[in-house]
Amino acid sequence: MISGRKPIIGVMGGSQCDGEIYELARQVGRLIAERGAVLLCGGRGGVMEGTAKGAREAGGLTIGIMPGGNVSESPPNPYIDIPIFTGLGDARNAINVKTADVVIAVSGGYGTLSEIALALKNDTPVVGLKTWGFHREGFPKSPLFVEADSPKGAVERAFGFIRR
Amino acid sequence: MISGRKPIIGVMGGSQCDGEIYELARQVGRLIAERGAVLLCGGRGGVMEGTAKGAREAGGLTIGIMPGGNVSESPPNPYIDIPIFTGLGDARNAINVKTADVVIAVSGGYGTLSEIALALKNDTPVVGLKTWGFHREGFPKSPLFVEADSPKGAVERAFGFIRR
Amino acid sequence: MISGRKPIIGVMGGSQCDGEIYELARQVGRLIAERGAVLLCGGRGGVMEGTAKGAREAGGLTIGIMPGGNVSESPPNPYIDIPIFTGLGDARNAINVKTADVVIAVSGGYGTLSEIALALKNDTPVVGLKTWGFHREGFPKSPLFVEADSPKGAVERAFGFIRR
Amino acid sequence: MISGRKPIIGVMGGSQCDGEIYELARQVGRLIAERGAVLLCGGRGGVMEGTAKGAREAGGLTIGIMPGGNVSESPPNPYIDIPIFTGLGDARNAINVKTADVVIAVSGGYGTLSEIALALKNDTPVVGLKTWGFHREGFPKSPLFVEADSPKGAVERAFGFIRR
Repeated sequence: MISGRKPIIGVMGGSQCDGEIYELARQVGRLIAERGAVLLCGGRGGVMEGTAKGAREAGGLTIGIMPGGNVSESPPNPYIDIPIFTGLGDARNAINVKTADVVIAVSGGYGTLSEIALALKNDTPVVGLKTWGFHREGFPKSPLFVEADSPKGAVERAFGFIRR
Repeated sequence: MISGRKPIIGVMGGSQCDGEIYELARQVGRLIAERGAVLLCGGRGGVMEGTAKGAREAGGLTIGIMPGGNVSESPPNPYIDIPIFTGLGDARNAINVKTADVVIAVSGGYGTLSEIALALKNDTPVVGLKTWGFHREGFPKSPLFVEADSPKGAVERAFGFIRR
Repeated sequence: MISGRKPIIGVMGGSQCDGEIYELARQVGRLIAERGAVLLCGGRGGVMEGTAKGAREAGGLTIGIMPGGNVSESPPNPYIDIPIFTGLGDARNAINVKTADVVIAVSGGYGTLSEIALALKNDTPVVGLKTWGFHREGFPKSPLFVEADSPKGAVERAFGFIRR
Repeated sequence: MISGRKPIIGVMGGSQCDGEIYELARQVGRLIAERGAVLLCGGRGGVMEGTAKGAREAGGLTIGIMPGGNVSESPPNPYIDIPIFTGLGDARNAINVKTADVVIAVSGGYGTLSEIALALKNDTPVVGLKTWGFHREGFPKSPLFVEADSPKGAVERAFGFIRR
C-alpha cells in the first residue's frame, strides 16, 4: 500500500454465480467500503456486481478493470464508478492483482484461480472465501494465502495484511 | 461516455517537460476538475504530474495508469489518487485512450504521438495543445482531432466532444 | 489447431528448477520436435530452457514469449530461435496459452498455476507432469486437464488432444 | 538484433489497402526473405497479407502477432506460418515494434502511425514507404526514422540499420 492513499482492495470471482455467493460478495463489498478502502473488481456481473453493489451501498468508490476496450465490448455493471477499459481480455487479470493491495477471492472459476496464482506470484496477499484450493508436491504453502469462512472474517484478514 | 457516470478526460504528454508546459498541463487539469470530470493520465512526472496537480488543487479525482507493476517500478506522482499498476510498459498507452472519453495531448514525445494515433483508431476524440502534427498522403484528416491554443480552449473543446 | 499449419505446443514451468525437472523438460521438448510440432515457451531459464534445448537438439523450431521488452530486460535462453519481446511481464502468460494448441505444464510455481488456469479458461487443453493439483467445491473437473507420469506419456496425451 | 539469430524485420501497414500498396508490401516481404530475415507482421489482411505472401513466395518464415485471442477472433491470413494469438487488441502493437529488429512501415492508417511512434520510443529503427510524416515544434527529428521510395530501397535501408 502507498502511504497517504486509501487502500485498494480487489474482489475477484466469477461473472456468474448463485444468489448465496452474490450476497457474500455484496457483504464483502459493503465492509470494504465501510472501512474506507476503494473497491477494485473486474467490473462485470456475478461476484463483481455483487461486491460493487455492496460497496456502492456503503458509499464507497468502485473501480472496474474491464476486459473489453469500450462500453459495447464490456458493459460495466451498474455499480462501477470508474470503468477502466483495457481491451486486453484475460490479460487484464494481471492488472487486477498488481493494483490491489490485497485480493479477496470469492468462489470463482478458472479466471479467479489465475488471479489467485498471479497475486501470489506478485506478492499480493490473497484471502479466500469458498474458493479454490491448490497444491504442488514440494512447493511450500504461501503465508500470503489465507482462508476465511465469512465476509466479516475475509475483510478482517484483508485489512490485517494492509496494516502490516 | 457512459450516461450517469462522470466523464473521464485523459491528459497525455511527456514525463519530462519545461516549466511552461507544466503550467499549461496544470491549468488543463484544474479546468477539467472544476467542470466535474475525472482526470486520467499516465501517472508519472512532467505533463502527467502537472495536470494531476491542477486537478487535485481543484478538488478533482485523479487516476494514473502506470507502466510498471508496482510502486517501486513506477512511483506515481504525488497527485495521483488511484494508481492502476499495469506492468505493461508502453502497451498501457492503449488503456489510456480506451478509458478516456476524450484525450487532451499537451506537447509530448513519441509516446504521446502513439496515444494520439491509438485514440483516433479507437474513435476517441483528441484535442491537441502544442503537440504533434501528422499527415499521410491520401489519408483524410479526422474530424476527431482538433487543436487548441490555450488550456481553456482545449478543455472547452474536450467537453464539446462529450456533450455530443 | 489451424489446418495446414504445424501444431504449436506450449511447455510451461518455472524459471528455476532442479536437474531432474530440467531433464524431464528436455525430453518433453525433444519428443515435441521429433513429432513435428513447434515448441513455444516463456523463453527464460529452468523448465523453459530445458525444453527449448530438447527441441533444438531434435531440430525443432522454438518460440519464446518473453516477459521483457528487449534483450537486456529479458535475455532469451540460448535455445530460442524466435524471441517475441512483449514487455508485458506476467500478462504475457495469457499469450502463451492462447497461442499454444495444447499446453504441457512441468512442475512450476505460481506463474505456471496461472497458466494452467488461463489455458482451461480459454479451452486450451493442459497435460500436467509433476505439476499443480487444484479443486473448488462444486466446480466440475475439466476434461481438458489430464495428468501424465512421464515425458513420453505427456507428449502422447498432448498430441491426443490435437488429433481430435 | 541478437547475435547468432536470424534478424526479424517487421512490416506494418493497414489491414485494407489498394492493389498498388499490396504489391509494394509483397515485394518488401520477398526481399526480406531473400536476404534471410524472418518476417513479422500483424497477421491480418491488406499490407500484412501482401508482405507475408511475398516472404512465403521466397521461402521465408512468417510470424503474425494477432490482435485476437484465437482463430475465430483473428483469422490469420493464409501466408502466416506462426500466428501468435495475443487477445490484446491494439495493445499488441507494442509487441510488434519491440520484437522486430527494424520496422518497415508501408502506407497505413492510425494503427501504423502508433507503431511508428512506439518503435521510435523503443529505439527500434523505422523505414517509411509511402507512410506518415509527423513533426512537433521543438522536437528533434530522429535519426532512426528514414524514408525510402521503393521496396528495394526500403529493405536496403532496413538491413543497413541491422548491420550497425
